[in-house]
Amino acid sequence: MRSIDNYQTLFQAFLTENSFNQMPQELYEPVNYILSIGGKRLRPLLALMGCELFSDKIERALPIAMAVEVFHNFTLLHDDIMDAAPLRRGQPTVHTKYNINTGILSGDVMLIWAYRFLMNTEGGDAMTIRLLDIFNKMATEVCEGQQMDMNFETRSDVTIEEYICMIEFKTSVLIAAAFQMGALVGGGTEGDAQHLYEFGRNIGIAFQIQDDILDSFGDPLKFGKKVGGDIIQNKKTLLVLKALELADEVQKTDLQKLMSETPTDEATKIEAVKSLFEATGARRFAELEMENYLKIAFQHLSAPPLSTDKKNYMHQFANELMMREK
Amino acid sequence: MRSIDNYQTLFQAFLTENSFNQMPQELYEPVNYILSIGGKRLRPLLALMGCELFSDKIERALPIAMAVEVFHNFTLLHDDIMDAAPLRRGQPTVHTKYNINTGILSGDVMLIWAYRFLMNTEGGDAMTIRLLDIFNKMATEVCEGQQMDMNFETRSDVTIEEYICMIEFKTSVLIAAAFQMGALVGGGTEGDAQHLYEFGRNIGIAFQIQDDILDSFGDPLKFGKKVGGDIIQNKKTLLVLKALELADEVQKTDLQKLMSETPTDEATKIEAVKSLFEATGARRFAELEMENYLKIAFQHLSAPPLSTDKKNYMHQFANELMMREK
Repeated sequence: MRSIDNYQTLFQAFLTENSFNQMPQELYEPVNYILSIGGKRLRPLLALMGCELFSDKIERALPIAMAVEVFHNFTLLHDDIMDAAPLRRGQPTVHTKYNINTGILSGDVMLIWAYRFLMNTEGGDAMTIRLLDIFNKMATEVCEGQQMDMNFETRSDVTIEEYICMIEFKTSVLIAAAFQMGALVGGGTEGDAQHLYEFGRNIGIAFQIQDDILDSFGDPLKFGKKVGGDIIQNKKTLLVLKALELADEVQKTDLQKLMSETPTDEATKIEAVKSLFEATGARRFAELEMENYLKIAFQHLSAPPLSTDKKNYMHQFANELMMREK
Repeated sequence: MRSIDNYQTLFQAFLTENSFNQMPQELYEPVNYILSIGGKRLRPLLALMGCELFSDKIERALPIAMAVEVFHNFTLLHDDIMDAAPLRRGQPTVHTKYNINTGILSGDVMLIWAYRFLMNTEGGDAMTIRLLDIFNKMATEVCEGQQMDMNFETRSDVTIEEYICMIEFKTSVLIAAAFQMGALVGGGTEGDAQHLYEFGRNIGIAFQIQDDILDSFGDPLKFGKKVGGDIIQNKKTLLVLKALELADEVQKTDLQKLMSETPTDEATKIEAVKSLFEATGARRFAELEMENYLKIAFQHLSAPPLSTDKKNYMHQFANELMMREK
């Protein structure tokens, strides 16, 4: 297996080769823009790794890597419009830099190009069809997850099961599908690829739960976003849902009151809500859930017939992903 | 070949069987809504006809018919947001009845489902891949055509060649691809299907040019839209572009003045612009262009090895499409 840098260099070269120079420029310039403001290129990396677990010919997975990155950025582009977000990775969002209509249409064409890239994968018609089936299911679920997330904003009866399903659809299935498609094109069996899918899906859920925890309890010097952001926005995270479930009457009233008022002092509100997360046991619950999903993920990693070196590499990679704070 | 009603009944039954009953309801209800407010179901009809030219088993083309109808309605949904249109076929548009975010996301999931339906077509993996390649090219061009149309609003140097390319991409390639994919799944050769594509593409361009002409010169009692609507909106139609090209200095100044002022009386402006379309020869040019595209379309129809009955049927169908006014 290669270094993360090596994978990223390989993908970046492919991305540059395949930049969108077509006309009309007004349609494709925003596509190049959102792809250029980067991020960690995590999803393409997973497709390349999934392939290399089973084959040395990792360039086979480059079209898949491109498809998942273009798809991911399409969802970011449209989500930013829906959230009216002015910035993405510190840069103006597409609809801010250009306009909303450009954002909608450039996003649409990115979704189509994600299919086009995916279809460039070598390996024969049956392989292409199999990848498209995986992609279709994943893409549908991502839209459904985004809708669930929007629904939750106005619902007061969200269950923990529904919340987990939402984060699974909105973020984990893409990570899972990237691994699975990479594994298949690398020559892994359907069974191997399914284990990689489950590895990715469970890692993704664990990662998202950790994000909820860090948002409240992260180190402000290390956490990428503003600590307490979810609390100020009254976001119904796993911590809130579980705290409401475990709270006694007094705690429940306190939490509901805190979440319905505009705070005079944000720091005080953050501390009060965090105390309730601790006192109700919601923080502990979330940490245990996260560890449980990680455990399941590693069980799936252990199933395919891979060398110990490869398994250790993936284990370490997953741990590093999870360790990005703490 | 069947009656138009017969094709439409067949498609409507398939559409009803495949209505979107999945969760979350907030995502799929708008999809059912836009599909229910109907229209003429022209594109699915073309896919079914394209198939029946080569095979009795026209139910083979139903997934293609569904894919093109879902794709077409996805474009309408997103276009209505971009145009801030309150009504579609006399009913509230999706973003008016629900909201813009729902419109964006439901449109996105429709595009994905168009691919899913297309992939349900029988005929083996190679056929599926071929259909997907046609669909990808068409879908990309439709987005590019929509962007060109938006660009033209603020450009003053649009050429007639660019205008024809815009209407070709925005509307004709979908009509063309519906015929082509239907022909392929019906067992037509690549060559036959290419002729059907060119038949549809040229009919589509002729139809759109006719729409420009009728908008100015149509019978107000028969034309579906308000006659003179394009003139009031100062839309750069083929008539305007050609009139500016053919006009003498005085006519050019008159037309540019008419198109830059807010009229005190709309009827007077419409009559003045129409006179210039006549005097410059732009109307005659547009009529000749339309007839030329129709002629090319019928040349392509005559190429495949089809019975005279079938060719006559298609000829008459195309003529009836073009005769809807006049």
